[in-house]
Amino acid sequence: MISTSTIREKMELYVQLVNKRDIKAILELYAADATVEDPVGVEPLQGIEAISRFYREGLGQSEASAEQTGDVRTTISGEGAIPFQVKVTFEGRPCVITVIDVMQFNDDGKITSMKAYWSQDNLEVLA
Amino acid sequence: MISTSTIREKMELYVQLVNKRDIKAILELYAADATVEDPVGVEPLQGIEAISRFYREGLGQSEASAEQTGDVRTTISGEGAIPFQVKVTFEGRPCVITVIDVMQFNDDGKITSMKAYWSQDNLEVLA
Repeated sequence: MISTSTIREKMELYVQLVNKRDIKAILELYAADATVEDPVGVEPLQGIEAISRFYREGLGQSEASAEQTGDVRTTISGEGAIPFQVKVTFEGRPCVITVIDVMQFNDDGKITSMKAYWSQDNLEVLA
Repeated sequence: MISTSTIREKMELYVQLVNKRDIKAILELYAADATVEDPVGVEPLQGIEAISRFYREGLGQSEASAEQTGDVRTTISGEGAIPFQVKVTFEGRPCVITVIDVMQFNDDGKITSMKAYWSQDNLEVLA
């Protein structure tokens, strides 16, 4: 089982990598057969190829950035939850999305499941 | 399906009720057959009687309090996530626990599942 301190490190690193739009390093955090449900309520993406497309589409724009907004909550069962904000351009306008990601890790320390909790209510148009 | 605005209201109310230690009102938020996994990784409690015992044991002490620390993240699928802190006395010492609760609601607006993400790493002894 992955330790709580490793869960914390990996999840803090994840948000830093989203902020840097380092898609290659983000994908290295994931297991090959991982699932991504972002936002929660849509059909989950399955497998690293679909996940790769998702990040290329979401982070391809040069303005995207991300910032952690509170402590990583870890668990003894290989899961964690992290609050953060993402700034993106949506329909030509700068927006901030307030998110909580919940991730499950396998024994090799790879993400097997990512669920992003947010909806339209958590999307603020900045200008 | 419960609306995102109702999810937000119910989850904000939940933390306010934990702060007031209003166990009766907390239990009214739950469905009769709900599950509670607090912290994530322990065997889930099943049903309102087990959940009632859990809150009586956890909130029985007169010092317990709680405070929301960020926005409720809602979803179009009847779920939500809320970051908050709980102050309790643990082994005679004041502590603060930094938590994220993830809740699933049914169509009647009752909580069917509560999962509390935290571990020893999120528990700080204050004195």
